Amino acid sequence: MVGNGFMGAAHSQAWRVAGRFFDLPRQPEMTVVVGRDADRAADAAAKWGWEESSADWREVIARDDIDLVDIVTPGFSHAEIAIAALEAGKHVLCEKPLANTVAEAERMAEAARRAAASGVYAMVGFTYRRVPAAALARDLIAAGRIGTVRQLSVSYLQDWLADENAPFTWRLDKEQAGSGALGDIGAHAIDLAQFITGRSLVSVSGTLETLVSERPVLVEAQGLSGTAGEEKQTVTVDDRALFTGRFDDGVLGAFEASRFSTGRKNALRFEVSGSLGALSFDLEDLNSLQLFDATADPLTQGFTKIIVTEPGHPYLDAWWPAGHALGYEHGFSHQVRDLVTAIAAGEQPTPSFDDGLQVQRALDAVERSSDAGSAWKEIS
Amino acid sequence: MVGNGFMGAAHSQAWRVAGRFFDLPRQPEMTVVVGRDADRAADAAAKWGWEESSADWREVIARDDIDLVDIVTPGFSHAEIAIAALEAGKHVLCEKPLANTVAEAERMAEAARRAAASGVYAMVGFTYRRVPAAALARDLIAAGRIGTVRQLSVSYLQDWLADENAPFTWRLDKEQAGSGALGDIGAHAIDLAQFITGRSLVSVSGTLETLVSERPVLVEAQGLSGTAGEEKQTVTVDDRALFTGRFDDGVLGAFEASRFSTGRKNALRFEVSGSLGALSFDLEDLNSLQLFDATADPLTQGFTKIIVTEPGHPYLDAWWPAGHALGYEHGFSHQVRDLVTAIAAGEQPTPSFDDGLQVQRALDAVERSSDAGSAWKEIS
Amino acid sequence: MVGNGFMGAAHSQAWRVAGRFFDLPRQPEMTVVVGRDADRAADAAAKWGWEESSADWREVIARDDIDLVDIVTPGFSHAEIAIAALEAGKHVLCEKPLANTVAEAERMAEAARRAAASGVYAMVGFTYRRVPAAALARDLIAAGRIGTVRQLSVSYLQDWLADENAPFTWRLDKEQAGSGALGDIGAHAIDLAQFITGRSLVSVSGTLETLVSERPVLVEAQGLSGTAGEEKQTVTVDDRALFTGRFDDGVLGAFEASRFSTGRKNALRFEVSGSLGALSFDLEDLNSLQLFDATADPLTQGFTKIIVTEPGHPYLDAWWPAGHALGYEHGFSHQVRDLVTAIAAGEQPTPSFDDGLQVQRALDAVERSSDAGSAWKEIS
Amino acid sequence: MVGNGFMGAAHSQAWRVAGRFFDLPRQPEMTVVVGRDADRAADAAAKWGWEESSADWREVIARDDIDLVDIVTPGFSHAEIAIAALEAGKHVLCEKPLANTVAEAERMAEAARRAAASGVYAMVGFTYRRVPAAALARDLIAAGRIGTVRQLSVSYLQDWLADENAPFTWRLDKEQAGSGALGDIGAHAIDLAQFITGRSLVSVSGTLETLVSERPVLVEAQGLSGTAGEEKQTVTVDDRALFTGRFDDGVLGAFEASRFSTGRKNALRFEVSGSLGALSFDLEDLNSLQLFDATADPLTQGFTKIIVTEPGHPYLDAWWPAGHALGYEHGFSHQVRDLVTAIAAGEQPTPSFDDGLQVQRALDAVERSSDAGSAWKEIS
Repeated sequence: MVGNGFMGAAHSQAWRVAGRFFDLPRQPEMTVVVGRDADRAADAAAKWGWEESSADWREVIARDDIDLVDIVTPGFSHAEIAIAALEAGKHVLCEKPLANTVAEAERMAEAARRAAASGVYAMVGFTYRRVPAAALARDLIAAGRIGTVRQLSVSYLQDWLADENAPFTWRLDKEQAGSGALGDIGAHAIDLAQFITGRSLVSVSGTLETLVSERPVLVEAQGLSGTAGEEKQTVTVDDRALFTGRFDDGVLGAFEASRFSTGRKNALRFEVSGSLGALSFDLEDLNSLQLFDATADPLTQGFTKIIVTEPGHPYLDAWWPAGHALGYEHGFSHQVRDLVTAIAAGEQPTPSFDDGLQVQRALDAVERSSDAGSAWKEIS
Repeated sequence: MVGNGFMGAAHSQAWRVAGRFFDLPRQPEMTVVVGRDADRAADAAAKWGWEESSADWREVIARDDIDLVDIVTPGFSHAEIAIAALEAGKHVLCEKPLANTVAEAERMAEAARRAAASGVYAMVGFTYRRVPAAALARDLIAAGRIGTVRQLSVSYLQDWLADENAPFTWRLDKEQAGSGALGDIGAHAIDLAQFITGRSLVSVSGTLETLVSERPVLVEAQGLSGTAGEEKQTVTVDDRALFTGRFDDGVLGAFEASRFSTGRKNALRFEVSGSLGALSFDLEDLNSLQLFDATADPLTQGFTKIIVTEPGHPYLDAWWPAGHALGYEHGFSHQVRDLVTAIAAGEQPTPSFDDGLQVQRALDAVERSSDAGSAWKEIS
Repeated sequence: MVGNGFMGAAHSQAWRVAGRFFDLPRQPEMTVVVGRDADRAADAAAKWGWEESSADWREVIARDDIDLVDIVTPGFSHAEIAIAALEAGKHVLCEKPLANTVAEAERMAEAARRAAASGVYAMVGFTYRRVPAAALARDLIAAGRIGTVRQLSVSYLQDWLADENAPFTWRLDKEQAGSGALGDIGAHAIDLAQFITGRSLVSVSGTLETLVSERPVLVEAQGLSGTAGEEKQTVTVDDRALFTGRFDDGVLGAFEASRFSTGRKNALRFEVSGSLGALSFDLEDLNSLQLFDATADPLTQGFTKIIVTEPGHPYLDAWWPAGHALGYEHGFSHQVRDLVTAIAAGEQPTPSFDDGLQVQRALDAVERSSDAGSAWKEIS
Repeated sequence: MVGNGFMGAAHSQAWRVAGRFFDLPRQPEMTVVVGRDADRAADAAAKWGWEESSADWREVIARDDIDLVDIVTPGFSHAEIAIAALEAGKHVLCEKPLANTVAEAERMAEAARRAAASGVYAMVGFTYRRVPAAALARDLIAAGRIGTVRQLSVSYLQDWLADENAPFTWRLDKEQAGSGALGDIGAHAIDLAQFITGRSLVSVSGTLETLVSERPVLVEAQGLSGTAGEEKQTVTVDDRALFTGRFDDGVLGAFEASRFSTGRKNALRFEVSGSLGALSFDLEDLNSLQLFDATADPLTQGFTKIIVTEPGHPYLDAWWPAGHALGYEHGFSHQVRDLVTAIAAGEQPTPSFDDGLQVQRALDAVERSSDAGSAWKEIS
């Protein structure tokens, strides 16, 4: 695993846990964790249970005892590491967004296609697909339970920037982060919308907005903590993204991504309306999915709150008895399960780097539309 | 109408409104409102739109142009007025609880049976039966939609006494009010439980509790407002009633009534669990009813929130388009509609005084059980 | 009152009821109801309690015993009637949207300004402003309780067209209705957003979409009921409107109006995020308002569900005890109260025809933007 | 660890995970798992990651390399294993309920007291105390945030027996399970009520009810699955328990435990009402806690839904960023953390076996009360 931030903890937990619940073809071995700072990498290895640590990812991907490289670094470094790993014959799991630019993502997707030809696979980590309620939504739509999809709304709302004195971080710097709310959380909204409907966005019209234009710089920063100094740094990314997207079947989706939604901590929501029903979801209540069935007895129609913890629900047979909730981290275990299972079967895991590239192009189209006064832009 | 407190406003609104939405056999005429204080009665007449006012109910019930007497006074006066009115050949609508004692209620029920023999009818005002969601619950249970009822829980939670400095009122005096939370709101819980299941309680085991034993007396009291003096008066009724009741089909119900449920303003709730499903309701969200259908596809089972504002729902055809909420007062209009329709058809309206008597006996049994260390007491 | 459709019932109820709860300077007298069809107008008079009926609105507005004309006809007739009434020296209450075109609305606003100069007032009926929870939201924002408003989202979702076989109605005909979801319910979303924030939209970018392009024509239509024939008629209005609007303080609002939101019956929703808190509302749960207070103890922050039925809440002192729900129709009584009070005080009631004109211009700008590939259009 | 049913999976996960998130004095080593069937124990070891397996718990507790014995077997075997382990100088974690009888629990508590004198500690596994929302409730009550506790209601509702054809299991046999809903889930309700209030139950009045008296026996049973044969077996435990309990400060609590609450999968709920506020919780939405603050501005009072995933919330600093949900299993990791930390500090972990004994006595008192016609019984 390359990277040792918060995502590293989530991925480590998944590698440790997945094989204890799912019947994997092989129990994962947590060999080595890589970080730029050797000491912090060593700490991460001890903390998260990796056998070794290293400060040199190139050296690690050259090792024979490594089968898979898991990339959890910031987006700007994804392309270099992922392409090198694939060329070294290692399977790759890469955190989202796939890259910071379409050009990088294209090179990565190309590398992935080449590798796949020789049975080496790459996957991008849109884990929210693997929240059981989201996977159930996809299944229900695919089974026609809400009829023809007519419209959808998807939003991802957080509030960690609502305090105008919240400090500057690399996530507010376009060079490092690529974009703001758009790429950080809007990317999840796009991927999830495409996943549950089985459709692809083809064009968008949108507006990006920066709500607080400069923020205090932390002295001795450690993550989000530290002491704010007097110096201010300019925010070069969006704080909120509003866009409308047209899918390949003509359906329009309304999208919103914001890190200024005061009081919303992690509200990835969708509502999909079809000719026979509707589905509604909110990640802040991740163990449930709301279904409206317009074909039911008119006197007792309504949104049904399905608690997605029953036997037969996606991924649930592996876990606890009915009614026992899963949490945020379980999606990562499901990701490991799906990835390892696909690799063992010699099949392309999804979402592929091509899927990640398509999301990257959608993000790029939103930026281009915003720059062009919300004119519609093709995703291609 | 005899009485001019808050209930008088609710009843007046119903008499004024019911005929504008429902096709009544005859438009009600609001002839005279009676109050002990002539000036306040005159004010009430002007405010609520009654043609006349009076300070003498005996005179009013002797009038030829009065067909129906609506009694909205405190419980201790119900028996005298209702019996006199029935004997004078007037139909009677009497607010709940029917009386303050079983003995009074028995005399009233007897008078009502005598009157009914000559086509004069009496009804007791358990209006929550006429909240559309409650009526729908009754219909669904009767239609077998939740199978055999196995258990239920019913509670009525308010918090207007949670402040220990809330002043003394007649509702805290056993002589005037009969009992406390038990008769005031527990009576509604009992009636509603019996109504929706179509079953009667036959025995109970319970505990009554007074949580604040004395309260300041208001100087120049006006309703609940006024200035609290230094004098204190002893609370002689219960603040909270907890009891278990057995229905005539053997089912057990758990009951709670409290005016100390901090933050709950008017939470009359029930949950009925059957062999094939369940129903759940909360008066604080009175336009909805939750239904669980255990016969549905296991993958999409859950509680369905039925918004009970659709065409075909009980009483709803008379009101607004789908999705347009009703309020507290509409139950009173439904009561007028049902009462006037039954009288015109020469049928006994429900709940009858016998029904009210049965609730009174249940309240009495709870008190006897509490006095006897929660021993089970028959309702008879 | 001119018009006798569903809105007529709601307005009649308000005229009948408002003076029974609020201290109006004068009890309204329900003199005459006007309808094109004399028989149906007579039926409406009897049903709703108007003294007389008429088939000629011109005759009625000429009468000396008429002080106020309440217009509840479809939008295309608003201008003619309202202007004539104002010129005849009658106060006017006109249902929303003010008109079907900006040109009509301009003429109406001009007539209203002229009339106001001589103490005759006009008001447009955006009643949702008078839902107590919405009025409370406005008060809390004005008092700074959520700090500086940073973003908002407003949607109005219904589903009565989700069935593709739902019949054609005048509301689907651009000539009669002006627009579809946009003017019918999007107008409410715009007015409410402006009302609660105290800000005006200045420009918009949007997309209108017709999801079902033709519908069966009813044979012997009566309201929405009747028998669908084989003939089809083309839908000439939008089914769904998505737009982004910029307010005069620079804030962006995301708007959606749809009559295809399967399962949503009457979901007018807003969420306003500020620097110190947030507010969230849904008309399907109209007695509550959600408030997030970012200045509270971090350990106990969260959205507080305020049940807006307490003494001190807007309009509530007139109604029932704490916790007793209001319904859809109460907003109309509040409208009567505010209108009659303002007229008696010689003050301009709000929203004025100028306010209605501004909403009309916003609707027009959305249509122009949609026609121009979502390019931003000024509202002016 | 002795036992290899579903609880074994939960405990294994906790032993594996706790040290990866919390700073434990020492990383737990998962040495050996014990099961009666050697093959199934070996499978469990492989599946859950234990180094070894064994079919003989006596042999295992004699080993020098074992410091702690974790008992996850059915209740009837707890006493024998726990006492032997403590006498062998091993710390003990024992699943709830502590035992099947008061006599067994007394012997266990005595053994635990003896062991504690020499620094060997025992703890009983009421893990729901360690759901962060429950721990926060305890903290808020202790800090006086809801004032003096006046009343509470606690229920634990499941529905896995609602189907009358659900097969017989050991949990329905009094010999093996001790009691039914009462001991299985009512025990959690009692412990949680005592934990959050810091008070102990002193007497109870209750009723136990068996709703389905016999059930089909599984042929070739495997857990809850298998083929139901024609043979029926008599259910010898309660399906539903209703009781009222008095705490040592005089407060009354209403309790319900049922496995017939159709549609409720795992609904452990409490509502505690105090003089200054109230708290409400439902395990089916385990990441949130509802707080009502009666001292707040009357205009904006209401239940606040605290999403208990913020920094500073109990146990949360160890996990994910704000708003990222925990699941059922996390309580077990918190239990390991608290247990290991207490042992390392030479302190008695809680809940102790004495605490478990007190719950056992409360369960016993409910049974005695039910047998005595709901007469109040002391817990002693």
